[in-house]
Amino acid sequence: MDNIFKNIIKNNIEYAKHGNVATYIPELAKANPCDLGVYVVTLDKQEYFAGDYDKKFTMQSISKVLTLILSLMDNGENKVFEKVGMEPTGDSFNSIVDLELKNIHKPFNPMINAGAIATTSLLAGESVDDKTERILNLARKLSDNPDIKINKDVYLSEKLTGDRNRSIAYFMKSFNVIEGSVEDILDVYFKQCSIEVTCRDIANIGCILANDGVSIKTGESIVPKHICRITKTIMSTCGLYDASGEFAVHIGIPAKSGVGGGIMAAVPKKMGIGVYGPALDEKGNSIAGIQILRELSEKLDLDIY
Amino acid sequence: MDNIFKNIIKNNIEYAKHGNVATYIPELAKANPCDLGVYVVTLDKQEYFAGDYDKKFTMQSISKVLTLILSLMDNGENKVFEKVGMEPTGDSFNSIVDLELKNIHKPFNPMINAGAIATTSLLAGESVDDKTERILNLARKLSDNPDIKINKDVYLSEKLTGDRNRSIAYFMKSFNVIEGSVEDILDVYFKQCSIEVTCRDIANIGCILANDGVSIKTGESIVPKHICRITKTIMSTCGLYDASGEFAVHIGIPAKSGVGGGIMAAVPKKMGIGVYGPALDEKGNSIAGIQILRELSEKLDLDIY
Amino acid sequence: MDNIFKNIIKNNIEYAKHGNVATYIPELAKANPCDLGVYVVTLDKQEYFAGDYDKKFTMQSISKVLTLILSLMDNGENKVFEKVGMEPTGDSFNSIVDLELKNIHKPFNPMINAGAIATTSLLAGESVDDKTERILNLARKLSDNPDIKINKDVYLSEKLTGDRNRSIAYFMKSFNVIEGSVEDILDVYFKQCSIEVTCRDIANIGCILANDGVSIKTGESIVPKHICRITKTIMSTCGLYDASGEFAVHIGIPAKSGVGGGIMAAVPKKMGIGVYGPALDEKGNSIAGIQILRELSEKLDLDIY
Amino acid sequence: MDNIFKNIIKNNIEYAKHGNVATYIPELAKANPCDLGVYVVTLDKQEYFAGDYDKKFTMQSISKVLTLILSLMDNGENKVFEKVGMEPTGDSFNSIVDLELKNIHKPFNPMINAGAIATTSLLAGESVDDKTERILNLARKLSDNPDIKINKDVYLSEKLTGDRNRSIAYFMKSFNVIEGSVEDILDVYFKQCSIEVTCRDIANIGCILANDGVSIKTGESIVPKHICRITKTIMSTCGLYDASGEFAVHIGIPAKSGVGGGIMAAVPKKMGIGVYGPALDEKGNSIAGIQILRELSEKLDLDIY
Repeated sequence: MDNIFKNIIKNNIEYAKHGNVATYIPELAKANPCDLGVYVVTLDKQEYFAGDYDKKFTMQSISKVLTLILSLMDNGENKVFEKVGMEPTGDSFNSIVDLELKNIHKPFNPMINAGAIATTSLLAGESVDDKTERILNLARKLSDNPDIKINKDVYLSEKLTGDRNRSIAYFMKSFNVIEGSVEDILDVYFKQCSIEVTCRDIANIGCILANDGVSIKTGESIVPKHICRITKTIMSTCGLYDASGEFAVHIGIPAKSGVGGGIMAAVPKKMGIGVYGPALDEKGNSIAGIQILRELSEKLDLDIY
Repeated sequence: MDNIFKNIIKNNIEYAKHGNVATYIPELAKANPCDLGVYVVTLDKQEYFAGDYDKKFTMQSISKVLTLILSLMDNGENKVFEKVGMEPTGDSFNSIVDLELKNIHKPFNPMINAGAIATTSLLAGESVDDKTERILNLARKLSDNPDIKINKDVYLSEKLTGDRNRSIAYFMKSFNVIEGSVEDILDVYFKQCSIEVTCRDIANIGCILANDGVSIKTGESIVPKHICRITKTIMSTCGLYDASGEFAVHIGIPAKSGVGGGIMAAVPKKMGIGVYGPALDEKGNSIAGIQILRELSEKLDLDIY
Repeated sequence: MDNIFKNIIKNNIEYAKHGNVATYIPELAKANPCDLGVYVVTLDKQEYFAGDYDKKFTMQSISKVLTLILSLMDNGENKVFEKVGMEPTGDSFNSIVDLELKNIHKPFNPMINAGAIATTSLLAGESVDDKTERILNLARKLSDNPDIKINKDVYLSEKLTGDRNRSIAYFMKSFNVIEGSVEDILDVYFKQCSIEVTCRDIANIGCILANDGVSIKTGESIVPKHICRITKTIMSTCGLYDASGEFAVHIGIPAKSGVGGGIMAAVPKKMGIGVYGPALDEKGNSIAGIQILRELSEKLDLDIY
Repeated sequence: MDNIFKNIIKNNIEYAKHGNVATYIPELAKANPCDLGVYVVTLDKQEYFAGDYDKKFTMQSISKVLTLILSLMDNGENKVFEKVGMEPTGDSFNSIVDLELKNIHKPFNPMINAGAIATTSLLAGESVDDKTERILNLARKLSDNPDIKINKDVYLSEKLTGDRNRSIAYFMKSFNVIEGSVEDILDVYFKQCSIEVTCRDIANIGCILANDGVSIKTGESIVPKHICRITKTIMSTCGLYDASGEFAVHIGIPAKSGVGGGIMAAVPKKMGIGVYGPALDEKGNSIAGIQILRELSEKLDLDIY
């Protein structure tokens, strides 16, 4: 394992040259496309890391995993999946087409924007601040990092440019998929996207998912086992936008990516992995990050299928 | 002609039983489904009318004609059709699918909601009130009725339930089809939909369109001829939602309907016609109103094709 | 009029440089992109022509007009429109999407491929040869040209490359929109597309449509008036593929184009026009041919709206 | 385990009442909706069975797994996935929409009809008979049953009613996704759908997939390990039509269903499972068969996520 980590950055940094950082909000465009880091936490408490493993980046779509978990804990499986489906879709993350074309107007799954806005709308909490704090607390507990907070610049940038998400949210509201103030729901949504983490943080979160919700440090059960299983399954089928199928075939690990450049992976019964590389491929996934996961999957035989 | 009008309500009132009043906003649901009226103003200054020709109703989508005219007068043909197309579409008035699926994200035509929101966004004026007043003034001038005003209850009802339109507007904003405050643009849009008219008012408007923009009373040119022609053409191909093709085949007159139950027709070089019947067919058009226009078209040989 | 025709080719030949001949079948690719011709036949029996007015080209989609007329004469309005709609669509001529997405699986209108295959399937006749001969006879009678025949090379080329049309036809067969042998129906369809005409031929056909079905030479009624009206209406709303709306706005004449480079126009109560220019624009319409029609419409005030 | 099998039919037969047998071809409609059987073969050579485990049924879509395996063995991963994708899609198995709407016209994955027709077209073999024999041989070898053959009545029925598949195939041919004779390709396709098996047969096939391609009886490697892995992954994400996501969440086993009522499952490193119950749910999956798999997954902890 140490041998693998000695060369893992060097082996894969080349791929970053073929990707581009996200530019749809100015804050993300500031990222250094050559950054690349990885962190592994195994269920038997080993930790391995390399490269820019301690650089901060925003969760972006990785936060959809937290929202799914929290809304399941708050509402139960039935209520959540009444509002959002669990089917993968070949369409891109911000598609609105399916919402109109299908007779059922609920989003396909909780990993596309529409679905995550729907799960966000279901979170318990009196106010935007209240709900945001609850997500942050879950992030802090799962990552064992009490200092996790929101990147305000990214949040404001998201809010300013979020018209496509507003369109999606108002569409769902018109069909009663979501209720209440669209701007409030989106405010929580934009904030959770802007939660700032490192590879280590998301490796820790992934590790708890891999361990059926139980902290390897304290033994505390933070997330019920069946919610962990649902979450890992949906990560497996829908976690990498419209490249989820290809990722499953080539790498075969439950994972969720974000346009901030992070990918969080949870290898059942084995380990959590966090990678960071802000140069993205055409589908919006970290181009070198995927290659690191591919190398790890092959060398450590992590494929679940 | 007098003979026709003696029986025209009686001949067609039966059809109203097969339709339903619009219910998506409570105010519209209050309409009496048995109301039916018609008003004709010919270019040689004859007027014919029957039934509930002086009942008030809100323009709804008929106002899209006014917005198209005013935005063309304000911006010229090129600028308007840079933002909105002129192609008919078989999709329903509130579809958002086409905006996403086609590479060009501009709305198909100015007679669907997306297109009318786009033309509204182009209106000259400093403020919501300013723009609304300019549309109202155009309506008053074209209808020769200085008392035309907005029905506040309908407007507030529209505003309250307008989430589908918000979705469409934010979608277009995210692609820079529209600029500025979405809520402000929609405020103007909801207000123009709520302009209250009678059959006589819209017959007068139709008459001026039929007369290439010139008032038959004063001889004043209110709308440039080429803008009248564009407007009548788009009414012909797109004026009755996804029943436009059928209306053209069976009746063959430039016309625009609204879910308030009105239909405004402009028979080139002949007459303007206003009908009102709030019982709608499945496509959202006045079910008995269409039959009145069919009878007039057949008996007076009004078909332009 | 003579003055107009003196310069009409010179005025518009320039546009041909911005277009391209159809290349989807090798035979069409052989056309000379600089060819340009026009022929006008007025209801008062005047004839005007210029350029390559006597060059032969294949009707292609212009034949959809003949099939619509013949299937209406064979089956009546009700039966035909039970199988094919009359709504324009913003989608391209060979789209299959609408057939699946809409609940009603019938084609939008008889001017797209799906619709024309459906009307072809309704033609009376015992065999492929029989049906083809009936269309040819209609073409010969309407054009007053007994020598009209099929271009065999084009027909064979069409047949060889017609897989997209086979896909459309089998789709409709699976929903019982068409019945019988798909290959037989397509054989008739490919043959009618390959009918060879000149500008004069299609100007004569357009003239009869303009004259409500009556031959200006013999006074014989060849096509019932109401079928002429339906046909001209559908040409107006659907005749130039997904540029039909724009053509209506700018030119305002019932017309039908074909990828062979021809456009047949029928100006109600005035004249038939045939133009030929195989250089096509992006939508598949003769690029210089449209400009000739635009010049004629403006100078002769032909716009019907 | 024996305890589980004692009651497994009784526990789940009730669900069959809520489903219906497939009726799109008459032969399938003859099935007895109350039939229900299950067969398990573990990697340590234990066998368990109950109910109608030895009733014959046709593979239908389960054969898509064989075609994928054989085309991968014949052509390699690169060539196959150049023609067909590996992304799940929320659309139904016979959708043609995605083929047109997406810029890349290749099918989403090999488990929908379009994708399986494409993999079929890639099979090595000189003739229809040759290719069919190669699939049959693979089926016989994997199932350890040399008597497997095609049900001719079902095959002829499929061929007669296969117009939707013809439409899909011609569409792909027009975009060069498939080459050669469409009827020949479909002939192979219809034949493989009509391969007749029992629960035991497909349990044996599943067992070899679960064992990375190696026969538990002879130790022979029949399918390369990496092809087994690809196949199980695509079964996991796309194996149950547009209920694949839900099946993954609730049951979490690589599996493939067919409208004949069979489901073949391959639990990595553990066992193969075959179930048969011709009463289908709305998505086309065996309604009681799914419940049997759910019970087995829960009681034996088979979920891979």
